[in-house]
Amino acid sequence: MNATRRQFLHATGTSLVATPLAASMSSAAAAGQPQGQGQPARKLGYALVGIGSLTTNQILPAFARCEHARPVALVSGDAAKARTTAAQYGIPERGIYSYDTYDRLADNPDIDIVYIVLPNSMHAEYTIRAHKAGKHVLCEKPMANSVKECEAMIAAGRDADRKQMIAYRLRYEPFNQAMIKMAREQEFGKTKVILCDAGFSIGNPDQWRLKKDLAGGGSMMDIGIYALNAARYLSGEEPTEVHAMEYTTPDDPRFREVEETITFQLRFPSGTLANCVSSYGAGFNRFRVHAERGSFELEPALSYNGLRMRVFRGSTVEERYLPQRDHFAAEMDHMAQAVKDGTQPLTPGEEGLADLRAIEAVYQSIQTRQPVKVGA
Amino acid sequence: MNATRRQFLHATGTSLVATPLAASMSSAAAAGQPQGQGQPARKLGYALVGIGSLTTNQILPAFARCEHARPVALVSGDAAKARTTAAQYGIPERGIYSYDTYDRLADNPDIDIVYIVLPNSMHAEYTIRAHKAGKHVLCEKPMANSVKECEAMIAAGRDADRKQMIAYRLRYEPFNQAMIKMAREQEFGKTKVILCDAGFSIGNPDQWRLKKDLAGGGSMMDIGIYALNAARYLSGEEPTEVHAMEYTTPDDPRFREVEETITFQLRFPSGTLANCVSSYGAGFNRFRVHAERGSFELEPALSYNGLRMRVFRGSTVEERYLPQRDHFAAEMDHMAQAVKDGTQPLTPGEEGLADLRAIEAVYQSIQTRQPVKVGA
Repeated sequence: MNATRRQFLHATGTSLVATPLAASMSSAAAAGQPQGQGQPARKLGYALVGIGSLTTNQILPAFARCEHARPVALVSGDAAKARTTAAQYGIPERGIYSYDTYDRLADNPDIDIVYIVLPNSMHAEYTIRAHKAGKHVLCEKPMANSVKECEAMIAAGRDADRKQMIAYRLRYEPFNQAMIKMAREQEFGKTKVILCDAGFSIGNPDQWRLKKDLAGGGSMMDIGIYALNAARYLSGEEPTEVHAMEYTTPDDPRFREVEETITFQLRFPSGTLANCVSSYGAGFNRFRVHAERGSFELEPALSYNGLRMRVFRGSTVEERYLPQRDHFAAEMDHMAQAVKDGTQPLTPGEEGLADLRAIEAVYQSIQTRQPVKVGA
Repeated sequence: MNATRRQFLHATGTSLVATPLAASMSSAAAAGQPQGQGQPARKLGYALVGIGSLTTNQILPAFARCEHARPVALVSGDAAKARTTAAQYGIPERGIYSYDTYDRLADNPDIDIVYIVLPNSMHAEYTIRAHKAGKHVLCEKPMANSVKECEAMIAAGRDADRKQMIAYRLRYEPFNQAMIKMAREQEFGKTKVILCDAGFSIGNPDQWRLKKDLAGGGSMMDIGIYALNAARYLSGEEPTEVHAMEYTTPDDPRFREVEETITFQLRFPSGTLANCVSSYGAGFNRFRVHAERGSFELEPALSYNGLRMRVFRGSTVEERYLPQRDHFAAEMDHMAQAVKDGTQPLTPGEEGLADLRAIEAVYQSIQTRQPVKVGA
């Protein structure tokens, strides 16, 4: 029962319901009501680079729920698909680009932000070129395939004096935000152990995510990064030490080039420990924080919708209900606001770089069969 | 909110309900109905060694639910407590022993099986002496404080030609048995990753479990062993490699001698990986198996009662209901039956030894900060 990535991330059976909060925010924006100091909200223009399933199924539909963002351009190697998609979302003819004409984004004043939704190996090049074209950049995770590429991307943003953000959508939705708050405010005392598991049984063996050159690695780059990132944001710390074990089923056509499953342990400076799983071989969708006097978890934790929170204290298990928000609308609005306000996004390039440092340590631990100091 | 061990293991808020199955079994036994080949069931006599809270709160009350076992002797350093307890359970005066008169168990034909419920450091000596007295032995887990002691205990049982069993109660109750069956029969395909977490916030800093000499170690010896044992029985394999990380809160009066929290990873020959937690600093009570097409878990997994099973498949979460059995009655009956039938108990000394091999590898990994081959 292998799944597409999309099926997995929709695996909750719960469809997105517009919540009162989200609804009131977008209706205010849609009606062009005055905001802030009496200025009508100007929606910033996004260019989408790559129109694979994430773009067509999640990102483009999410603009309808955005207050500060609208799609104004598409970059694709498939001109026919680009034209059809553009028509569907009211993107004008002048907003259609191929990879050959990518650098001309510079000449299009409609475009404020370039959203990179390409295979991982292309993130660095297309981010750097977008900055050189004078644009702000929102880039999908993983930020790139190496620490070195991340550093070059950050430098490009700094040189161009443009904002750069990595699309860690879970940082912008209420359930993960509530988990962070509960951990930081120590609702159940000091955090002892964090458990983060992310995985799904991947389908089509021919997809780019299973090609080492394009994806940079296997499950760890694509889905394990959610577990790693969550362990970092739930602890609020950077790991100092990593140990990892890997297993990949021999002769499985999906795993000719990349790894299937990794279990990894993290040590944080405060003494918090984390146990994590990354897998392309089975379903994992849970973040849990064990603190002195109770624990709290999300399961599903990383689906596009239908997240659920349970809180364990003594003999009681309590479910906490929160509004569901469209993760992509929330992150695109956040980036647009950061650009408008001249503030640093919550998940800048440095956040993507920190994950890549830890991922490189995970791979090094697998290779050397030793624990590895992170960033050392 | 520290807890006694007993409070934690009762932490489910669910009281034990006699199930139809268990009830029908014990009523048949209580009525002395003919069994097997027309023989009335003879209940074998147990001597309980140590009358701490586990004996008084769990083991002695469980005899009321036993079909094949009855309490006939107590060994205690507290003569007054022994007399009161004996009177409560109809144990005759001649069944009361002190540690000075322990070897005289040999002369009491009422006693078939000696159940060792002493601090860990005393398991080896009292098991070996019971075998020398010609008795079968049921011994609490951990079997002993070292592989060496376990080996001496196994040899003593063999030399005396007596049965030996380690009290892994979860192997005798329906929920853990169902988990094993689901894994072995691959109801959801091949097992990929096993997650086993066991811990509680320990109370009184003066108890023997927090003394290195008596307990042999900290959380790993007492509660982490449940996670380890479960990873072994859920995989059906012996781990080949262990890596562990440890953290113990400085200046916590409970942890002057022993460790607080350990996260440990196991690698099994088939490629199954396990991530486990052992803690005296926070509550953990869950075993989970992630297989190719779904996952199944117990939470609580190791409480004395109130276990619950959830099964995850695609977008559905299903709860499976099973009869609750008294774990102690089940294990004492099993041992009595093994003695009657001349069969090997399901969890003989070799099972305790295998855990100690892995526990020694866990401690060695912490000390050397290296992964450790188990049994090497």
